[in-house]
Amino acid sequence: MPSPLGEPGSLRERKRQRTADAVRTAALELFAERGYDEVTVADIAERAEVGRTTFFRYFGDKQEVLFSDTEEELAAAIQHIPRPAKPIGESVPAALRCARLLVLTFVDRITSDRRAYRLHQQLVSQHPELRARSLEKQRGYAARLAAQLTDWGAEADTATLAAEIGLACFYAGQAAAGDDPRLLTPSVGDAFDRLIAPGRRTSAPTD
Amino acid sequence: MPSPLGEPGSLRERKRQRTADAVRTAALELFAERGYDEVTVADIAERAEVGRTTFFRYFGDKQEVLFSDTEEELAAAIQHIPRPAKPIGESVPAALRCARLLVLTFVDRITSDRRAYRLHQQLVSQHPELRARSLEKQRGYAARLAAQLTDWGAEADTATLAAEIGLACFYAGQAAAGDDPRLLTPSVGDAFDRLIAPGRRTSAPTD
Repeated sequence: MPSPLGEPGSLRERKRQRTADAVRTAALELFAERGYDEVTVADIAERAEVGRTTFFRYFGDKQEVLFSDTEEELAAAIQHIPRPAKPIGESVPAALRCARLLVLTFVDRITSDRRAYRLHQQLVSQHPELRARSLEKQRGYAARLAAQLTDWGAEADTATLAAEIGLACFYAGQAAAGDDPRLLTPSVGDAFDRLIAPGRRTSAPTD
Repeated sequence: MPSPLGEPGSLRERKRQRTADAVRTAALELFAERGYDEVTVADIAERAEVGRTTFFRYFGDKQEVLFSDTEEELAAAIQHIPRPAKPIGESVPAALRCARLLVLTFVDRITSDRRAYRLHQQLVSQHPELRARSLEKQRGYAARLAAQLTDWGAEADTATLAAEIGLACFYAGQAAAGDDPRLLTPSVGDAFDRLIAPGRRTSAPTD
């Protein structure tokens, strides 16, 4: 994800990343300690030892602290996956294979800090405004996936379909994994696999 | 969908339906005339010749007028489809065939009044709070589909996966159909068909 403040890996960019991480860590700590509604932007800025202006330079509002990380992980997942050898074109199976890889890499990343993932899920389930923001963000992730598949040569309808299926497998995997972040990647993979090769289940049924 | 006010087909239920339709028609007329933000619940109640109390007995708030119809169409689509001859069990293809039929019947119903569908889409795209409500409702439709597939003997993960795929095909179809309500049913059908029998496209590509 290109940053307005510096090239990836540059000193400036690393400093920017450290500040953003400090603000996120402070926010999650405070949300866990006092509850989301009891924490103000001023509280977060104070705990992270940054000014309010700095906070708003990094995050649009208090809600955004909870989502910027996920967006960065999606961008990182996309950067991480090599362009397929052949343009996707109109091939739904090829588009689904790419979508599977992108979504699984993304899910792996967002669940690597299990405690942060659990807290995020808990806050989203408890606060209707965070849930609304989360649904809106997820529509954005589908659009981002579709854009990537298009960039890899997928025809427009094929890219959109595979991206939407990717989000669908994410939701299905979330339902199957329940509260356990360790089960999310295998459950999402299972959803894809059951769709791509129906009749075969790659992991044990959860019920 | 059982109504708290009367059995389907009863005089009471028909009267309830007429009142709800009158309120919806009045609301859509007013939204089209003045814009959504300029219309109050009192305006809608006055145009529909009902009291405010009656309005709130039928609809929780102003937003809800725009969604209750869609919910009724989903309930009607579900009632319309006969139970499959064999329980779905763990069969993803069987669950997808049922989801396809449910979603296409639903989409057919919500686009039958083209003008109302277009206005609904327009309002949702222009008002973030309506868009948020719409996304939340769509999560509810996926859950309702999953419940129906479960009722038809689908194992839990299979039901959820097929329901999520149903919503994904709906989104993909919407993207392909653009603003034209007449294209929605074939576009959603095309999305399902490309997934169920990849490589074959049942309708002409739109691009």
